[in-house]
Amino acid sequence: MDPVLLYDTTLRDGTQGENINFSAEEKIKIAQRLDDIGIHYIEGGWPGSNPRDRQFFNLAKTVRFNTARLAAFGSTRRPGILPGDDHNLAALVESETPVVTIFGKTWDHHVKLMSNTLEENLSMIEETVIWLKQKGREVFYDAEHFFDGYRANPEYAMLTLNAAIRGGADALILCDTNGGNLPSFIADAFRAVRSAVGQSGIRLGIHTHNDAGLAVANSIEAVNQGAVVVQGTINGYGERCGNADLITLIPILTLKMERPCITPENLKKLRGLSRFVSETANIVPLNSRPFVGKSAFAHKGGIHVSAVMKDPTAYEHVDPALVGNSRTVLISDLSGKSNIEYKAREMGMDIGGNGCDSRKIVQEIKKREQEGFQFDAAEGSFKILLEKLTEQHRPAFELESFRVVIEKEKDRPCNSHAIVKISVGCRDEITAAEGNGPVSALDNALRRALHQFFPDVDTMHLVDFKVRVIDGNAGTAAKVRVLIESRDRDNLWSTIGVSEDIIEASWQALADSFQYKLAKQQNLQCVE
Amino acid sequence: MDPVLLYDTTLRDGTQGENINFSAEEKIKIAQRLDDIGIHYIEGGWPGSNPRDRQFFNLAKTVRFNTARLAAFGSTRRPGILPGDDHNLAALVESETPVVTIFGKTWDHHVKLMSNTLEENLSMIEETVIWLKQKGREVFYDAEHFFDGYRANPEYAMLTLNAAIRGGADALILCDTNGGNLPSFIADAFRAVRSAVGQSGIRLGIHTHNDAGLAVANSIEAVNQGAVVVQGTINGYGERCGNADLITLIPILTLKMERPCITPENLKKLRGLSRFVSETANIVPLNSRPFVGKSAFAHKGGIHVSAVMKDPTAYEHVDPALVGNSRTVLISDLSGKSNIEYKAREMGMDIGGNGCDSRKIVQEIKKREQEGFQFDAAEGSFKILLEKLTEQHRPAFELESFRVVIEKEKDRPCNSHAIVKISVGCRDEITAAEGNGPVSALDNALRRALHQFFPDVDTMHLVDFKVRVIDGNAGTAAKVRVLIESRDRDNLWSTIGVSEDIIEASWQALADSFQYKLAKQQNLQCVE
Repeated sequence: MDPVLLYDTTLRDGTQGENINFSAEEKIKIAQRLDDIGIHYIEGGWPGSNPRDRQFFNLAKTVRFNTARLAAFGSTRRPGILPGDDHNLAALVESETPVVTIFGKTWDHHVKLMSNTLEENLSMIEETVIWLKQKGREVFYDAEHFFDGYRANPEYAMLTLNAAIRGGADALILCDTNGGNLPSFIADAFRAVRSAVGQSGIRLGIHTHNDAGLAVANSIEAVNQGAVVVQGTINGYGERCGNADLITLIPILTLKMERPCITPENLKKLRGLSRFVSETANIVPLNSRPFVGKSAFAHKGGIHVSAVMKDPTAYEHVDPALVGNSRTVLISDLSGKSNIEYKAREMGMDIGGNGCDSRKIVQEIKKREQEGFQFDAAEGSFKILLEKLTEQHRPAFELESFRVVIEKEKDRPCNSHAIVKISVGCRDEITAAEGNGPVSALDNALRRALHQFFPDVDTMHLVDFKVRVIDGNAGTAAKVRVLIESRDRDNLWSTIGVSEDIIEASWQALADSFQYKLAKQQNLQCVE
Repeated sequence: MDPVLLYDTTLRDGTQGENINFSAEEKIKIAQRLDDIGIHYIEGGWPGSNPRDRQFFNLAKTVRFNTARLAAFGSTRRPGILPGDDHNLAALVESETPVVTIFGKTWDHHVKLMSNTLEENLSMIEETVIWLKQKGREVFYDAEHFFDGYRANPEYAMLTLNAAIRGGADALILCDTNGGNLPSFIADAFRAVRSAVGQSGIRLGIHTHNDAGLAVANSIEAVNQGAVVVQGTINGYGERCGNADLITLIPILTLKMERPCITPENLKKLRGLSRFVSETANIVPLNSRPFVGKSAFAHKGGIHVSAVMKDPTAYEHVDPALVGNSRTVLISDLSGKSNIEYKAREMGMDIGGNGCDSRKIVQEIKKREQEGFQFDAAEGSFKILLEKLTEQHRPAFELESFRVVIEKEKDRPCNSHAIVKISVGCRDEITAAEGNGPVSALDNALRRALHQFFPDVDTMHLVDFKVRVIDGNAGTAAKVRVLIESRDRDNLWSTIGVSEDIIEASWQALADSFQYKLAKQQNLQCVE
């Protein structure tokens, strides 16, 4: 099968997405990761449009890429001037990239809308390509609105492509700029273009948007019809509904279509790349992202789990390890005995070992989930519950009592403090602390009390705190679920509390978090 | 064109998604919204698998749907027994739904994996369908793993479908259970099935998963090959990478494929439905969701904006109003000003009237929104803020102080009480009350204090209380947004509070709710 060349535009089209902003230095780091995984072309930005992109290309001049070729992006020359007089084109050349990608208009309606003539538009395309080729660049021509233009006026759309070919372009990229076309139309139009320009030997490529949720499918259709360059972004970041997601396309191309594009070793870096880019963009990774998401190989239903344990292909379309991901088994009221036994084993526990009836344990877990607990999101509390139900729980501390007081005067901010009394072994400890709200005060007071016995508790802190009202219809007496995520130097764990009282629910999650931490580290001795 | 029937499984397969949990009451509310938009079939749950789904079907018996038909979901009978002896099937019948959907195995490998024989699997399918038809149900047969099974052993896969047809099934739903198939294979297999079973007249349907990002595309392919039932979930919620997203499929079917499925009036409710389900699931709505997302028709400055202003089709694949969405153009604060003036006029207020600078008001509102306030969801607080900023606010009461105390001893439940001191006119009032948690105690104490002056306050109560952590990364010191919905005999209003302290945020929302109520009813005289 013919190889497919990957063209990444995360650093250019991706940054058109809402809330996506990268500094020039961050762009360099992302480009290095893209190079590292074997992306063939990296579009770094639009140097004519903003100073940050110019800064990126300046920094990039000192960076050595392994195999990736860097591209600078811009528009065809402005109407009525020579390419040499267009500062946008000058900025492209000054970027000193081996590749330059320029976009031009395909759609007659759009040309007229921008007060240009159809003839001048064709000259702009041809002359710009000629000029860039004279500068020694590999030139990609992006045909903006190609599919909408082809539907409206196929003859004119073909004239624009021919202008780029006459100019000497190395590749034609057909763009579904508005992202609204269906795969069947993409296929028909692509086939028509291939038969019209096939003898020129020019490479054809595809650039899609996800406005109808079809960016990946449309890219695949184009590849089936002869596209050898696929443009997209990491995680599908991009304007409106985003671009084609390379993180989804790459494993489809390699594992399902058997089109060479990156090596199996590099494919294993896919999940890491996806995470790196979402971290850099400071966007929470999508759990449901195909192939690499946290939930992509998570099994919840009891039937599914028992089958997957016998043979993963029963409910997994590919081996998660191929893309650097792994299987997860979730705990929930849809789950049966097999989920819970699997999970317990994963935690190094034997739940049938000391004569406990695992059916009763499952019933107890289902009862709690009915009350609003959600153990698939709180493995820490799940482990503590299993320990309690199998009489293996050895709490590091016991609560004697707490008292939280919140005071407010007129419109000054609230003031909270907490007094916590715990016992560890035969010793009691009472401490008080203030905090930013009652839960923070409780956290601080408990932490201070525990510190007397377990100094290492300082390495641990809360990283996430989620509150959800489960049944919103009971007014302020509604049931509340609190999820807390905690971490220390090496680990990350989640705990849960459910109650009609938000402080009670928070306490449950908080206490579980500390119990889990202290039980986990057996080398953490009580210094009574 | 033939109509397409929509089959929603948000309440069943959707709840297999990580972090998706609905109470039985929430499921009823979602079912009513699905009915309201014109979904044809609503799968409510799996009554044989958990008590919550049984509770849902019990509640549903008293609900009247306009046109939607309710379906209960379950498995074929267990091996080696009669359908009448299978309590899972008994639970289906006891659900008293007009439709029953059962799934059976297609894939020979999977049958053997679960230690069954190929023959017994066929008997299970046929006998279960016969038995359910005898009970007078419309029976849908979900062919689990159809496409993987058809690839592995097409003869056996067809035998399973024929067993369901012989049993008298009303529809065959071909499932891409693992979600890994490509559109071209879905099309080939569907075409083969249609030509094999076409003369039986049975309806064919499609059920896809999004493990390769192709759930929507695969559903479209199946419709192109003759599927007349499309299964999916709202927002694509579901196991692993989710199910086919009906929120994307519905506008594609109606606007792009011209297949009748819901009316244009109902299509306008699409965005609202998507939001309602994400709110109920307490999952942050995806901004980039096709058609309905906040960013789906958002244009960043520059070329796109000026073109869209001349002609929206330049960068919009459909008119956002058709699906209840709207265009966003992120430009100057001038547009913000006209929005806010529009909003104020809507509330019968004149914000420029008493010499206030409306540009300053806009800046103040933007500042608060930046801090986490969300006034589109809290018109009550928005009105009070506008009144304050234009010096028109006449508070019905002033807070002098409050104190909330929460106490807990060992593992007994928390105990909360609040003391509230307010002034109304020249008089002070101090009251105390207990409550189910600190916010409930505050609500009760404030209500009791106000009752002395405004007895009609008794007609008002809180109907919804939502908490969301805005910035999850600061541990228990994270910022929290509280939304309260209140009602009296005639009105419903929402108020908001934002703070790092959950009690402070709750107080803001609570106080605004009472202020709004007391300001609104001018006939409500203070009885000092």
